[in-house]
Order: sequence, then C-alpha cells, then structure tokens
Amino acid sequence: MTRHKITFLPHGREIKVDDGANLIRAAMEAGVHVNASCGGEGVCGKCRVIIEQGEVDNGVSERLSPEDIANGYRLACLTKVRSDLVVRIPVESDVDSSVLNLQAAPRHTARIKTFDLNTLKEQGLFIPPVEKKYIELPKPTAQDNISDVSRLFYHLKIEHGEHRLAMDLSVMRTVPDILRRADFKVTATIVRPVREDGKNQIVRIEPGDTTGRDFAVAMDIGTTTIYGEVLDLNSGEVLASYGEFNGQISYGEDVIARIVFSEKNNNLAVLQKKVMETINKVLSKIIKRAKIQKHEITTITLAGNATMTQLMIGINPRHIRLAPYVPASNFYPPFAASDIGIDLADHAIALVYPGVSSYVGGDIVAGVMGSGMYRTEKLTLFMDIGTNAEIVVGNKDWMACTACSAGPAFEGGGVVFGMRAGKGAIEDFSIDFTTFEPMVMTIGNVRPKGICGSGLITIVARLFEAGVIDNGGKFNQNLGIDRIREHNGVWEYVIAWQDATQIDRDIAITEPDIDNLIRAKGAMYSGAQTLLEEVGLTMGDIEQIILAGGFGSYVDLEKAMTIGLLPEIDPSRVTYLGNSSLLGAKMSSFTNRLRRDVADVVRMMTNFELAETPSYMGHYMGALFLPHTDLGAFPRLKKRLELLRKVKR
Amino acid sequence: MTRHKITFLPHGREIKVDDGANLIRAAMEAGVHVNASCGGEGVCGKCRVIIEQGEVDNGVSERLSPEDIANGYRLACLTKVRSDLVVRIPVESDVDSSVLNLQAAPRHTARIKTFDLNTLKEQGLFIPPVEKKYIELPKPTAQDNISDVSRLFYHLKIEHGEHRLAMDLSVMRTVPDILRRADFKVTATIVRPVREDGKNQIVRIEPGDTTGRDFAVAMDIGTTTIYGEVLDLNSGEVLASYGEFNGQISYGEDVIARIVFSEKNNNLAVLQKKVMETINKVLSKIIKRAKIQKHEITTITLAGNATMTQLMIGINPRHIRLAPYVPASNFYPPFAASDIGIDLADHAIALVYPGVSSYVGGDIVAGVMGSGMYRTEKLTLFMDIGTNAEIVVGNKDWMACTACSAGPAFEGGGVVFGMRAGKGAIEDFSIDFTTFEPMVMTIGNVRPKGICGSGLITIVARLFEAGVIDNGGKFNQNLGIDRIREHNGVWEYVIAWQDATQIDRDIAITEPDIDNLIRAKGAMYSGAQTLLEEVGLTMGDIEQIILAGGFGSYVDLEKAMTIGLLPEIDPSRVTYLGNSSLLGAKMSSFTNRLRRDVADVVRMMTNFELAETPSYMGHYMGALFLPHTDLGAFPRLKKRLELLRKVKR
Repeated sequence: MTRHKITFLPHGREIKVDDGANLIRAAMEAGVHVNASCGGEGVCGKCRVIIEQGEVDNGVSERLSPEDIANGYRLACLTKVRSDLVVRIPVESDVDSSVLNLQAAPRHTARIKTFDLNTLKEQGLFIPPVEKKYIELPKPTAQDNISDVSRLFYHLKIEHGEHRLAMDLSVMRTVPDILRRADFKVTATIVRPVREDGKNQIVRIEPGDTTGRDFAVAMDIGTTTIYGEVLDLNSGEVLASYGEFNGQISYGEDVIARIVFSEKNNNLAVLQKKVMETINKVLSKIIKRAKIQKHEITTITLAGNATMTQLMIGINPRHIRLAPYVPASNFYPPFAASDIGIDLADHAIALVYPGVSSYVGGDIVAGVMGSGMYRTEKLTLFMDIGTNAEIVVGNKDWMACTACSAGPAFEGGGVVFGMRAGKGAIEDFSIDFTTFEPMVMTIGNVRPKGICGSGLITIVARLFEAGVIDNGGKFNQNLGIDRIREHNGVWEYVIAWQDATQIDRDIAITEPDIDNLIRAKGAMYSGAQTLLEEVGLTMGDIEQIILAGGFGSYVDLEKAMTIGLLPEIDPSRVTYLGNSSLLGAKMSSFTNRLRRDVADVVRMMTNFELAETPSYMGHYMGALFLPHTDLGAFPRLKKRLELLRKVKR
Repeated sequence: MTRHKITFLPHGREIKVDDGANLIRAAMEAGVHVNASCGGEGVCGKCRVIIEQGEVDNGVSERLSPEDIANGYRLACLTKVRSDLVVRIPVESDVDSSVLNLQAAPRHTARIKTFDLNTLKEQGLFIPPVEKKYIELPKPTAQDNISDVSRLFYHLKIEHGEHRLAMDLSVMRTVPDILRRADFKVTATIVRPVREDGKNQIVRIEPGDTTGRDFAVAMDIGTTTIYGEVLDLNSGEVLASYGEFNGQISYGEDVIARIVFSEKNNNLAVLQKKVMETINKVLSKIIKRAKIQKHEITTITLAGNATMTQLMIGINPRHIRLAPYVPASNFYPPFAASDIGIDLADHAIALVYPGVSSYVGGDIVAGVMGSGMYRTEKLTLFMDIGTNAEIVVGNKDWMACTACSAGPAFEGGGVVFGMRAGKGAIEDFSIDFTTFEPMVMTIGNVRPKGICGSGLITIVARLFEAGVIDNGGKFNQNLGIDRIREHNGVWEYVIAWQDATQIDRDIAITEPDIDNLIRAKGAMYSGAQTLLEEVGLTMGDIEQIILAGGFGSYVDLEKAMTIGLLPEIDPSRVTYLGNSSLLGAKMSSFTNRLRRDVADVVRMMTNFELAETPSYMGHYMGALFLPHTDLGAFPRLKKRLELLRKVKR
C-alpha cells in the first residue's frame, strides 16, 4: 500500500496515511482540529480545508463555491488522499501554533497484542493439551504376546517417549479390533495432564496416521457474545472464527439478571441449554468454514466469567449473586465436551479456564495468561473496561485483583445520547479552544445518532482541556456560546445541532452524563489504587497497562489519562488484548504448560472485595474529579493545562 | 466344644476329635484303615471296631449280633464319640503295626489362610481405596469468600491432611446446595489414587457425618460361580456373603465356549448382560443380608480371569482364544460401577484386578496378593488346581507364571465314575495292604455315587502305595483278588460293589481314569518345574506351597505328593487360600496400598507360554509317572515305598 505524508498548516504537524485515506480522519489522528458536526457525511460543510500541495480525490460539494474550489478549498470529510499533501486549516490560521499543538495530542490507541506461535515453539512450549501420535506396532507373536494395551503403551514409550499412559474403558473396548483392522498402525490421541507427574490419557485410537489432522477450538463464552476459533494444532493457524449473540440474552442482559432468572423453576437447565445452542451454532459454523470434520477436533478450551461458566456447566450460580459472593469452584476438571452437551465427538476434551472469584472469572484469568502479564517483571495494570469492570495489578511475583461495578457509562448507558459502538456513534471528538466549535467523527462517517463509550471519554477530556467543564465536571456557564446551555434544568454542551444529526433532536452531553462517566472511571481508578496500596505501591509505580474489554481498542489513551481513567504513562506502554478471553483460550490450546501456570497464577491472585476494603471509599472520593483530586499524579496533563490556561488568559 | 482323645489299636495312633465326632472319620483322619464300602451309611457292615474303653452313642445295627454288641463291637461309621476312647480295629490286629503306620500317613489338608485385618492396621496399611471424611467448614464471610470447592479442599487439607484433591463436574454441581443445606457440615467420599502422587478424587458430598456407614463389596467373578461379600470399612467385618451360578453358564461351561459364543452376532452384549444380572443378584442379596443401603457402598473390587473380566467390561475376548493369545489389557482403570451396569450408586467406584496374560488373570493375581506371596522371601509355589490350572513360582523379588490345561480330571471329568464334589462323592479312601479291601468315605456319609477330584487323588495314591498299580498307573494283574479285574477290555479296581452304592453298577477306577489324572498332575508339576528351570532352580528349592481353586481345601497333601502333583515338602508349609480371588478382592478393599503393589507385582510376573518353552515337553514326559521318573525328588515317599515293599516281600 502506498503511503503519503500530510503536513497540516499552520500547526506544522505531519502524519503518514495510506493512499485513499479520508483527510478529516487523518487530521483527527494527527490531533489537528477541523470544525465538523456531521460526522463526516459532508452535509454540515464546516470542514473546509485548503489543499496547498498535492493530489486529492473528491472533496467537492455544493457547500463549496466554484471560486472556493478553484482556490483549493475542499471539504476534508469528503477528501481522499492521493499523494503527499500540504493542507492548511483556514479557521485556525489566526491562532498561535504553539497553542494549537497544546490543545490536542495526536490520537493514540493501544498497540494490539498479537499471538506469537513461533516464540512458543522456540521455547519448546508448543505442546497442545491434546496431541496425536502415530505408531507402527510390531505384531504379537507367540514369543511376544503382551496385551494389546501394554503393547501400545510400551511402544509409545520407546518410540515417542510417552510415560504414565492411561486409558478409559470406552477406548480400551475399541483397541483389539482397531489394532488388527489397521494392521497395528494407529494414531493415539493423548490428553496431557496439568502436571508432568499426572497421567497421559489416551482418549482415542484411530487406524492409520491421522496426525496431520489435529484441531482445537478456542471459545470465549461472553455474557453478550460467544466467539469461537478453529485452530490447526500442526500449523498454529486460525482456520476460522465466528461470533454469535449468547442465546441466553433474551433471559437477561447481564449476569445478575441471568442468575435471578436461573433461580426459578427449572431455569438453570433452560439457560444451560440456551448457551449450548449458541456454542453449537458457533461450532457448526467454524467447523464448516475451516473445512474440517467434527471428529478431528480433539480439544475445546472455554473461557468465561464465573456466572457464564457455571451456567454452561450446569452449576447453580445463586451464591455468586448473594453476599458474600461465593462461586461454586475456581477450578474445573477436564471433561468430555459431550458431557455438557457440546456437539463434538466423545473423545474431545473440554478445558475450562479457572477463575479467581465470583467477579474475577476465567475470562480475566485468560487475559492475564494471554497477555503474558504473569511472566513479566514489570508492574502491570490490567483493566477490563465495561459495566462490570475487572482490575488486576501485579507481575510474575504477585497479583491482586478486584471487580467493580463501573456502571454502564462505558457502554453508552446512563448517558442521554449514549449508544453502543455502531454506525453513527460519535467515536472521536475535538474542540476549538477559542470558538468551542466541535469536530465530530462517527463510526461509518455518517451523521451522528449518539455517543459511544470511547467517544464519551474523548468528549469529556476535550471539554475539560478546553475549560468548557471544570475538574468537577460542571459547565463553565460564562463562555457565552449557544452550544453551552441549560436545557430542561440541566447544563449541557451541544455536540451536533439537529440538522447535522440522524435524529430529530440536538445531540448534547449533559452534566449528569459527565457525572456518570466520572463515577465509572473513578471506580476503576480507585479500585486499582486500592489494590496497589494494599501492597504498599502507588499508581506512579505502574510500568505498563493492558486493556481488555469491548472498546479497549478504540479508547484514545491520552484522553483516558486526561479524564483519570488510566494513570498517566507513556502510551506506548499500553497494550490492547482484543478479546482477552479468546486470546487466553487460544494460547492454552497451543501450550499445555499454560494449564500448569494458570493454576499457580490463580492461586497467586489475591482477590479483594472493594466494599470490604476500608481504604477504597477514600480513594473513590478522590477519583471523582477530572482527572483526580491529586493532579500531581498526572504531571503531563498538569503541565499542559497550565500552559493552556496561561495562553488563554 | 469338648474334645476327646481316641487311641486306635493295634497301631497305637492317637487323635483328638470334637464330642460327637464320627468314629470312622476320626480313623481316616488318623490314617487308620477300617474296611468300609458304603461311604459311612452303615449298610455294608464292614467297619466293625471294638470299643475297648470309653463311651459312644449309636454304632449298633442289624449287621451286628447281640453278642457282638455285648463284646463292644460297633460299626465305626455309625458311632459318635462321647468320651476318650480306646478302639481296636480287629481285622488289622494280625499285622505288624510298623507296617500299618507305613501305609497311611495321617490325613493332612492345607492350613487355610485367614485374612488378618489387625496386621494391616498395625502396619498402618488400613487405608481403603475409598474413604469418608467428615468436616465442619467455617461458613463464608465477606472476608473469607473463597469458592465452595476451595473451602472444602482447603479445610480437608488442614484438618485431615488431604492433598491433591480433585472433583468431577457431577459432584461439583451438588456442592453449593449441599454445603448450605447441611450448615457446612459434610462428609466427603474420597477415592484414593494408586500412587501417592496421584489425585484424591472426591466422588460424593453428603450432609452431616456419615463416616460410620462406609461399606465395600469384594467380588469373585468366576466362570462358574460369582461370590460377593459386603465389608464394613470401619470394623473390617464381613457383614454378608453369597454366591450364585454365573448366568453365562447356559452359554458355555468354560471360557473357550463363552468366547466362541461371544463372537457371533451381538452375543458379547448378551454375555455382558448375563454376568451383570448375576452380579446384581448377588449384590442385592448381600446388601439385604448386611442390612445396609445400596448408596452406602463406596467401592466394589472385582477379580476374575481374563475372559470373565473382558466379558464383564464389554471387551471382545476373541483374541484370548486365538494364537498368540493376547488379552486386550492387563490393567483396568477405576471407573464408576454403574458405567458397566452394576446396580450401585453413581459414586461407587469399581476396581478391577489386573491380570498377567490371557490365561493368568486377575483371579490368580488376586490370589498372589491375598496370599502374601509377593511379600515373602520364601521360594513359593502357587497352584490354582482345576481344568485350567495356573502356576506361579517365585517370591517378593521375582515371579514366573503360566497356565496349563490340566484337563477335567481334577473336577471329576474324563473319569468313568467322576463327579463334582457333592453328596455321595467319594472324597477319601484307604486300602488294606494285605486284603486290598477299601475304606470309602463320601461327602454326606451316604452310599457312594462317584468319585470327586480329591477322592481320585487319594485313591490313586493309595493304590500305588499298596502296589495295586505300578508307577505307570498300570494294574498289577497278579494279585488275585476280584476287585481287580478286566472289564469291557479295561483294567480297573472296584471301589464299591453295586449293593453298597447308590447306583446300579459297581463303582470302579480304571486305567484310563488313572492315565487322565497322571496327565493332569503331570502337566501341573512339569509346568512348575519348567518355570523354575528357566530361573535356574528346581522343585527341591520350593519352601512353601499355596493352593487355590475349588478343591484345594480337601486335597490330602501327602497323597498329592505321593502321586507327584505337589513336590514333597513338609505339609505344614502348605497353605490353602480358599477363594483366592475373593480373598484378594477383600484385601484390596481394605488397603489401597495393594493397588500400588499389585501393579508392581503384575509387571514383575514373567508369563511363560508352556507350548513355546522348549524344555516343557521333556519335563512333562518325566512327570507322566507316579510320582515321577525321578523318584529321588520324593525322598519321603521313596523311603516309605522301600519299607513297604520290603515288608510285603
């Protein structure tokens, strides 16, 4: 892909983008403000820029006069980059560029953690929990007439170094006939133990050499969505993946609703059946996409939160909901996948990720494992951001974890124009520090319908930096612009006027919206702070951050630090895991070593119930500000704010 | 019970018997010959003895004149001993007592091995493979809200020293509710691993303390009969026992017939179902007799030969029958008893005794374990005498084993008047060395119907000692008595004339009968000899003998040595195990240590296929004599024979 360099004037900021990139997106990425209300749909006509050098496509509109066009004016939101460009933002050109550069750090999202099979192989850790071994046995003779099973065990030991082999009756019954039918040339499917001194269980004997066909499934059992992947255990490739809404959703949106439902009548069985239906639907789809046979799947690794896990296995989750919040178990034994209704062959083994507590479940542990946090010396903050937020701090030597109810703000809940991340959701935002005019980017570049979680963070951060709201989240009522107004008794900032939206109202952010976000981020920040304090550390000691959860990849890290959701560290030291649960499940499918490690990690993770930790409430109160009562903990922001305030005065 | 001393004249032999004992039995036990043909029923009138001192009951009959009675004559077979006695055998009184004493060693059967629980307890080995532990758990609080399963595991570790605990899903599902219903006071049923580094599997959680109710079942799965015992794992008592014919019998008398039947159609399932019906019938009976509940049985230990084991588990036994005689497996994993149709609760674990080869199965291994042979330094000969005979030689350091088809002679087959041990079977025999008149004892003291295995051995031994047959088993045709005759072209000795029997013919033993017995004993003796020779030893090195199998307790050891079935050693060093298979199963029910030991023992046992061992045929040919071509290996007998021949000459 050809790359082009864009230089924005008067700022002087440069950014490299792919050929054909959208110019206003490029500006946003570079931290360059361009007034724009319509999300990039080209209807508001505000995003006028001058192409001083280079080639672009499109960018013209009825909103531009022929004279404008002749002078190089284009609408940035409609413009495609076709060469290196020099672009001037006209309305900004009166302002001192040093101020321009203060107001907006370039957009910075977290580096996505990628799974590296080669490293596993190099470390000799590419040992799937279920493996196939082919063997050609000498045939029995009068001088060598040991039992069929002993023959198999003995030669697997001699030829493949397999020790401590075991076999269940169901497999044993098939051995004599298969051996003879296959002329004593067979493939054994072997389930590895967690610890090396455990049994290596032979779960299947097949005629001939089938070692080339050995597949695993990794699956994330989410409250909302179930994702699955087919993995080729020979090549390490992901052959297919698919996600589907969890069929339990119609019985409750969140885990609490599901638990309440499960307590009545025979509803535990209903929910167990529903999740199985979804699991089997996902399985059927990925098996088809991967072009494999069902019986070739030897293992399925599943990760989910405690409630999803118990419902899947058929364990009453009642006590997860009731104080003192006790899960049935943290560890689950390996079992035949078909035992719980998973539509795989009888020999396929299900491995379920262990959890730590009722609210720090297998999905989080999978993230801790998938992220490599358990192997690093660096003090790490792991955050799964969502309504039910989980926090882990620590490193390879110790870990503390907790969960908090952040409320639904991060998912667009409790916010007047909040919405889930989808087409028309405002996902990025910038504000002019003198005119307070907005720059609005939506998912899909269409007129806005509402605000998603990552957009909300950015909006609040920019409003705060611009002085539109104070550190308590309250509006400056003296700016004298019509976008800041009291409406129905509540102060708000209008992000998009009705005619630039897809809805029949102005889209605004209100003080209660901001309050909700502050409470959500305050709960998470203070949760992490409390964990650290319990071990005598502070947020300043954090060396890296790992993000998980639905919108982690979209969060603008600088903005998340500006509002005090994340502690202020170098954004390059923030990683995003994607679907952490699926990542961990995938890792475990490739290296059995993880199963041993995970048991140690789970035992090492000290769980805190924040409500029972006296220091938490104090930390929480301190975190109910932008970014925090202790601005000293955010030195970068402090300096920027000081400069901004000085320039503006 | 009052005991009385009887002194037999002219021999001077003494014996002590219980009050009320039968006098002719006492004579037989003492090795004193009294002519008697009718088995003790009182009809032949031959067993006239004179009571010189002491009190007796009965003993009078129409066969005695009033004068005889007045002179102290009684029929020994009808006489009950009531005090110390002096008894004269009139027909013997002419003979030199030194000769009398030569002809008949006192009857000597093997000491019966008894199970000694106290020794196990003293050695700290009273650890059943399934145990119950009661525990009162602290209830969860906000400060202590670990998972239910972790709570259970943790406190079982703290209070009972239980480590490496594991639990299946089916049990895990029950935990949260049972804990709370039982106010966190529960009993855990724990299945022990074979090796200490294995998992201790919790298979059941019950409310309250049920440790006082913990029972096991030991079962012998015989080709003919299935025996079961209920064991109290707290007291070590056998609470009930019962045996029942194996329901498979109608599909074939022996293992080969069963295998042949199983190969057709769906007959494996038919046989599996049949044996389960019998197992469940026995179970139901012993559970009722023991006055326990089915669910209180936590383990069932089963021992049987390879074919019975495979049929029970549902593994095709075809290759046991076909060269090179390969069983499916020697070891069987523990499994839920209900998995194969055993009518016990889901948590009851089935443990199946391992075998060594197709023809040295779990029943023999159980005997080796039950007998303690695997722990002794003494060079031991273990023999399970029957149609399919198994032989083990060795000690705690090494063992060699084999099986041979001895033919049915030991069970009364291939013998004209042969019969199984039952009422009317001749079980003991003596012969007058001058008149060659017999003394015949039957089971039930009734007129004879036939000859059982132990009777056959004694008859042949006595005929040989008396010179009626030579060391090739051929009759001395020159003795000039009518009991020795040629009948239908075959030489025979008439044991009982028709009028003294229950049948319409004379009962005799023929040369072909004797041939069959010689072949049977020859196969066994030479089998043992071959095993020993393979390790550079001889029969003379044997330090003890352990007998198992149906008639072992009845075999007169001196006679078995006289015919060369057993090597000549001090009879006090011969032990009889009773039902060795059941004994081993019982032992294993009380001490899990045996499961580890048995794996080592089985691996140590070198199996020989006699047909593939070149030296066997030579040994066999040498053993086709009474007692053997090498009379030097039987010095006691050699000396006795020399004296006898000298006296008679």
